[in-house]
Amino acid sequence: MSVHFSGLQKLFLAVTLPLVIGARYFPNWESIDSRPLPSWYDEAKFGIFVHWGVFSVPAFGSEWFWWHWQGQPFPAYVDFIKKNYPPGFSYPQFAPDFRAQFFDPEQWAELFQASGAKYVVLTSKHHEGFTTWGSPHSWNWNSVDTGPHRDLVGDLGTAVRKRSLHYGLYNSLYEWFHPLYLSDKKSGFKKQEFVFNKLLPELYDLVTRYKPDVIWSDGDWEAPDTYWNSTEFLAWLYNDSPVKDTVVTNDRWGSDCSCRHGGYYNCEDKYNPGKLLKHKWEKCTSVDTFSWGYRKNMKLKELLNLPIIIQDLVHTVALGGNYLLNVGPTAEGTIPPVFEERLRGVGSWLKVNGEAVYTSKGSTVYAFLFVRPWKPVLELSAPITSPSTNVMLLGYPNRLKWSPIQSGGLMISLPLEIFVGDLVWTLKLDSVK
Amino acid sequence: MSVHFSGLQKLFLAVTLPLVIGARYFPNWESIDSRPLPSWYDEAKFGIFVHWGVFSVPAFGSEWFWWHWQGQPFPAYVDFIKKNYPPGFSYPQFAPDFRAQFFDPEQWAELFQASGAKYVVLTSKHHEGFTTWGSPHSWNWNSVDTGPHRDLVGDLGTAVRKRSLHYGLYNSLYEWFHPLYLSDKKSGFKKQEFVFNKLLPELYDLVTRYKPDVIWSDGDWEAPDTYWNSTEFLAWLYNDSPVKDTVVTNDRWGSDCSCRHGGYYNCEDKYNPGKLLKHKWEKCTSVDTFSWGYRKNMKLKELLNLPIIIQDLVHTVALGGNYLLNVGPTAEGTIPPVFEERLRGVGSWLKVNGEAVYTSKGSTVYAFLFVRPWKPVLELSAPITSPSTNVMLLGYPNRLKWSPIQSGGLMISLPLEIFVGDLVWTLKLDSVK
Amino acid sequence: MSVHFSGLQKLFLAVTLPLVIGARYFPNWESIDSRPLPSWYDEAKFGIFVHWGVFSVPAFGSEWFWWHWQGQPFPAYVDFIKKNYPPGFSYPQFAPDFRAQFFDPEQWAELFQASGAKYVVLTSKHHEGFTTWGSPHSWNWNSVDTGPHRDLVGDLGTAVRKRSLHYGLYNSLYEWFHPLYLSDKKSGFKKQEFVFNKLLPELYDLVTRYKPDVIWSDGDWEAPDTYWNSTEFLAWLYNDSPVKDTVVTNDRWGSDCSCRHGGYYNCEDKYNPGKLLKHKWEKCTSVDTFSWGYRKNMKLKELLNLPIIIQDLVHTVALGGNYLLNVGPTAEGTIPPVFEERLRGVGSWLKVNGEAVYTSKGSTVYAFLFVRPWKPVLELSAPITSPSTNVMLLGYPNRLKWSPIQSGGLMISLPLEIFVGDLVWTLKLDSVK
Amino acid sequence: MSVHFSGLQKLFLAVTLPLVIGARYFPNWESIDSRPLPSWYDEAKFGIFVHWGVFSVPAFGSEWFWWHWQGQPFPAYVDFIKKNYPPGFSYPQFAPDFRAQFFDPEQWAELFQASGAKYVVLTSKHHEGFTTWGSPHSWNWNSVDTGPHRDLVGDLGTAVRKRSLHYGLYNSLYEWFHPLYLSDKKSGFKKQEFVFNKLLPELYDLVTRYKPDVIWSDGDWEAPDTYWNSTEFLAWLYNDSPVKDTVVTNDRWGSDCSCRHGGYYNCEDKYNPGKLLKHKWEKCTSVDTFSWGYRKNMKLKELLNLPIIIQDLVHTVALGGNYLLNVGPTAEGTIPPVFEERLRGVGSWLKVNGEAVYTSKGSTVYAFLFVRPWKPVLELSAPITSPSTNVMLLGYPNRLKWSPIQSGGLMISLPLEIFVGDLVWTLKLDSVK
Repeated sequence: MSVHFSGLQKLFLAVTLPLVIGARYFPNWESIDSRPLPSWYDEAKFGIFVHWGVFSVPAFGSEWFWWHWQGQPFPAYVDFIKKNYPPGFSYPQFAPDFRAQFFDPEQWAELFQASGAKYVVLTSKHHEGFTTWGSPHSWNWNSVDTGPHRDLVGDLGTAVRKRSLHYGLYNSLYEWFHPLYLSDKKSGFKKQEFVFNKLLPELYDLVTRYKPDVIWSDGDWEAPDTYWNSTEFLAWLYNDSPVKDTVVTNDRWGSDCSCRHGGYYNCEDKYNPGKLLKHKWEKCTSVDTFSWGYRKNMKLKELLNLPIIIQDLVHTVALGGNYLLNVGPTAEGTIPPVFEERLRGVGSWLKVNGEAVYTSKGSTVYAFLFVRPWKPVLELSAPITSPSTNVMLLGYPNRLKWSPIQSGGLMISLPLEIFVGDLVWTLKLDSVK
Repeated sequence: MSVHFSGLQKLFLAVTLPLVIGARYFPNWESIDSRPLPSWYDEAKFGIFVHWGVFSVPAFGSEWFWWHWQGQPFPAYVDFIKKNYPPGFSYPQFAPDFRAQFFDPEQWAELFQASGAKYVVLTSKHHEGFTTWGSPHSWNWNSVDTGPHRDLVGDLGTAVRKRSLHYGLYNSLYEWFHPLYLSDKKSGFKKQEFVFNKLLPELYDLVTRYKPDVIWSDGDWEAPDTYWNSTEFLAWLYNDSPVKDTVVTNDRWGSDCSCRHGGYYNCEDKYNPGKLLKHKWEKCTSVDTFSWGYRKNMKLKELLNLPIIIQDLVHTVALGGNYLLNVGPTAEGTIPPVFEERLRGVGSWLKVNGEAVYTSKGSTVYAFLFVRPWKPVLELSAPITSPSTNVMLLGYPNRLKWSPIQSGGLMISLPLEIFVGDLVWTLKLDSVK
Repeated sequence: MSVHFSGLQKLFLAVTLPLVIGARYFPNWESIDSRPLPSWYDEAKFGIFVHWGVFSVPAFGSEWFWWHWQGQPFPAYVDFIKKNYPPGFSYPQFAPDFRAQFFDPEQWAELFQASGAKYVVLTSKHHEGFTTWGSPHSWNWNSVDTGPHRDLVGDLGTAVRKRSLHYGLYNSLYEWFHPLYLSDKKSGFKKQEFVFNKLLPELYDLVTRYKPDVIWSDGDWEAPDTYWNSTEFLAWLYNDSPVKDTVVTNDRWGSDCSCRHGGYYNCEDKYNPGKLLKHKWEKCTSVDTFSWGYRKNMKLKELLNLPIIIQDLVHTVALGGNYLLNVGPTAEGTIPPVFEERLRGVGSWLKVNGEAVYTSKGSTVYAFLFVRPWKPVLELSAPITSPSTNVMLLGYPNRLKWSPIQSGGLMISLPLEIFVGDLVWTLKLDSVK
Repeated sequence: MSVHFSGLQKLFLAVTLPLVIGARYFPNWESIDSRPLPSWYDEAKFGIFVHWGVFSVPAFGSEWFWWHWQGQPFPAYVDFIKKNYPPGFSYPQFAPDFRAQFFDPEQWAELFQASGAKYVVLTSKHHEGFTTWGSPHSWNWNSVDTGPHRDLVGDLGTAVRKRSLHYGLYNSLYEWFHPLYLSDKKSGFKKQEFVFNKLLPELYDLVTRYKPDVIWSDGDWEAPDTYWNSTEFLAWLYNDSPVKDTVVTNDRWGSDCSCRHGGYYNCEDKYNPGKLLKHKWEKCTSVDTFSWGYRKNMKLKELLNLPIIIQDLVHTVALGGNYLLNVGPTAEGTIPPVFEERLRGVGSWLKVNGEAVYTSKGSTVYAFLFVRPWKPVLELSAPITSPSTNVMLLGYPNRLKWSPIQSGGLMISLPLEIFVGDLVWTLKLDSVK
């Protein structure tokens, strides 16, 4: 009897790149791209992305609120402001309501750890330009001067690292409405006033202060990397910064960089290549399928549910990617319980199935079952068994009975337990090829 | 082989009271209490309770915010105000932020229907005194004059009734800080200025306008029913009001009434008698175990999860009670997704198991399995079988195999499906005694 | 040489009515109107009117702001709100900004005393319904529950009386938007729910608490006195209230009362009969000719200047009226310096010329010079002199030289001093007829 | 008969400096100081100073509000915030309430012209750093991005110049709380990040856009001119800027500059040297003696009255100074009526007496009478008369009679008119030495 799975049954791949110590990088892509990825990142597999900023205050539409209101106006956003705020209301007026009064970094870090994630990436500055730390280059437009009156980047970092999670920082290169950026843009990016007076001094300061393990760059697409001075910055980052040996970056460093240069590849948001890639990549996605930042009016059907998240995580990791799952905290500093439920659900699943995600061992193969079998016998045609082959169901204490199939593969007797729960199950096959 | 269930396996009871038409009630408890309960209520079994008001704006602690801040001050509430609002800030200043800008009564009603509930009870006025309709006796302290600028009671009622759900209104007799109430109280409740100038005119108006199917009375405990003029009001309600034949009330009509007089019994909040009662009762409870109103800082572990809700619902209905499950919408008019998930979860379960909850048929017995059996054979010792006995698992297409046990009862073969999911399963046994 | 004055030169009249002790009044106009006016009022001559309320917060247009915005909308008001406040903004939301944080009743009282006024009338409730004291019938719509969190009526009263000034309270009978009033009005004033549930209980409470010397009634015009229950109230006020012997009221007690019934006559705002009246009257007027309440955008040319105020005061008093001059304090509790300047200017003038205003002595005649003479000799034709006739210029130390004119009257030598200053001068002629 | 005046009777002096065209200045004080003052400035004599900014919103204490609250805290300011604003409130949150909704630059300009002033100086940026124009170097901290959403500098300039008044701009070099300034300061002013990234780019932009006739520099005292780069800036301003031929500056360009370098001298605020100076100077002073910015709680006695202003103006001009009289508009954009009254009063006086202030003609001498003479004959001992000497009283149509005194000087017969009014009178003596 042969069993067919409608879900994918990919094999797991772990690529560990050796870290060359002592190399010095030059400010060109050839050299920058030659840097091996620090190994912690590939081993991490699963991270939590946190979009938090002034956009969490209107919490409408998405974290692109400001742009959709005043950059390229969408009627829904314009109406939202018209109906709820006085004429003359300006976006920065949201900042004082970003109070984060319930923000408890220990609670967040506990949750992120409980989710099974190995790294956390926080928005230190999104396209709105507001910094979630006390940047001296962003006077009164940062979380210390106004709103929370608190170093969010620092406080979360301390709590996260206390739990041995890696800590990354998202940083937007461009700022939609910064007058110096707009003026550079008007010049066809011939001027670089914004880059040298605002972006770079701030970025150096950020790296030096917080020593991030990831710099998750974004907002690069309007200008080439030469405008952003990206290779120069990365050369410094990789050669001389305090995180030169550990830091990881992505590929958003200029209009031609995505999927081509930098560190690991993000390519587009929510990108999945659909196949194994030579280059390390990361799929970032969000529990709220409509937004990365918190939305007050999100509905259940717009959210990823737990089974889908786990399948997505497994698919990503199986193709060599990392999975960066985003939640948007509220302006008050809480993580909505429905997100908490998702994260703890992933954590519970990983507690059982995590070894298939995090590790890779010679002759061991893991097979994920995305749909519930309807019979207690499962047929796998690919693995080549040997007498010493062991078959386990992760989370089940006993070895499973199996017998080889003449034409190749094996038949496995499934225990009752596999019919419990509606999530992905993992079969572990030792001593197979 | 005998199987033991750690969960309860109660039988379902449905009491249908005949409705006497034409009776006239006198303003005394003997007469009032003699009124038969309109049958729709007992048949309904499951309702949704909605606590929504100005307390949804601070959304801190609970819907008792005002009291814990300024009535009997708790430090946490006093501090919350001190840290987040200017000196001189007064509770009514929250009202303008009760905007309900995302309130879509159709969406709410769709959700409530999808939950399997048969009635909905909304707070028309909580102890804060704010009315969620345009009461002329509550000038500028109602949802039409300020905040939403909308008739919330009316709008939700229309949507709810369009889906053939019954519609009830919660009403608090006392108002913590109403100066006339405070002055009556100071007089040892000898004066009734509040009752005759505020409470009763408003209550008559409410009934006449919205024709509620339930009046869920509350806030009665500080004064006897003679102060509240309860029997006179109820006599009018049962004799002459536009809802005299259909309306149902509870038992909170004075300091000695609870669990003794009025309509069905609520007794205390979250009350369950633990046994079958002669008198119809209702358990009201809240998904958020800490609050009835929305709290911005609720955490997952403070919420009822779906299995617990279903067990609670089953226990309640099995003992003859109705189950009124509360959710607290936000000031913006949304129902938090984590609540939505609970309600839709109950709805999915009821779609399969609802006949055991809503109905009762002669020789049919329903047995609920609260814990997952660890073997595929189940032994029940109570039911007396006959050759024509049928055993079904609700949601499973085929009859189950069973065989009588000599010492009494029967053994049932369980299908694999019963191991799927972590919720309550229902066995239906026809033609047993 | 004959001198002609372009200004009026009226004689001063003081009518002192005997107070009949022990009379009892009936609730009809004949009886009410028969009450003699307590003498203090006629002797007072000059009072300060203070319009202060929630209207002081928008401080736009006039104290009728709410009406012109939402009652009978004027575009300027509607636009003002549209341009400066969010949609859904309601008038009561102004109340929290009525903070009165700089309100120092001692400073106000000092200023009012320095102005030479003998009584002060404060708005205890204007047509908006907001009470500037903690009325239990106006929950959360009074100055103790919100805004100043202070008993403005009480605090100003204490300070004013400490300086031996009389203290009156303005009270509006109608309230533009009170739902009970609107409902009575809809009934053609056949119902009196507003009067008995709101107006009268509050008015009795006000009188009993603050024992005002004046009840300055207003807002009577939409309904007859029978609706307001005016004669009953006044009978109580004159017979049994704690101020029965001292209180003074005006004539605004119903749509047919003005200039006909009640206490002294106000007739219309800013009314001056132009002749001596038998019945005591009062001219109320405002430094800001456009408004009684404070306006943020008042301009100098819209204000009465000091010379005009003094001429107006003199004209009013000369015709037997009292002069009630209004200033509108700010929401912060300050009296704008330009008003202070006017009041102190009147006070300086009254210090010199006050005897002509406040008093009346047998054969003494006062003549006011409203325009500056252009020659140092003044001819008066009316007074009949005797050898003992004395002529003084108030504020000048020496007797003036004069000589009789054959055809009647006298010629007076004016000193240089009379050419100094641009205000009204007073000549005092003793022993003339 | 000899008359003695208790007030000063100074003679008027007008210094007209020739303007050297074509000179080129070097960035050192010797060269900068050698530049002749453009003649319009000395001829102007009287200007209006306008302090307007975010400080106009709290309008408490003075325009130094922020500093006294959070820089060097004064209890009164700290308490003011504590009592009226929520915890975490930050100064920039005042900005949205700087709405200027009643700001009508035409009305302001009309008033300034009516005051007789010949130039107007507006704060383009005070120490708070907020620019009253849309500076791209002050993102969201300027009047276009927030608050008025309007180019206040530009709009007032247009209106002022339409009336042929000169237009100057006040600019503070330092900004109390700018993080780059604070960081430079911490370095002992060795770093100049603030100067080169913020101050100078902004200042060049300001000059280029608005072409001010005056740059009224301030806030220089904490650092030497070398830190501010003052001489370089002034060299550019005088050599190459669009206002090189017309612009005037003062002396606040570094900690050692005041009263020594730059353009005309201000020395200290409200400075008057008490004698004729060789170097052109200006006395700046404020109608509100406690503040330059608007204060909501100013009282009459804290304001300069008209006679004092006129005496002060005359004293200043008589000693060769210009008189810059300050008013503080409200956040709503109005000029308080009490200030308007002062300005129009000065204007009325100047209409009569202005020739003595604005002009100087060979053998003509003007004598100001600060106190009212008590006799109609005035004796002056200084002027040397000739038979053709003419004596006039400004504002009086006829020549005055006079006769020479033997010992020198002359005796003048004063007309009655001189006794009218309480302001300064001007005698004009032609053909005297």
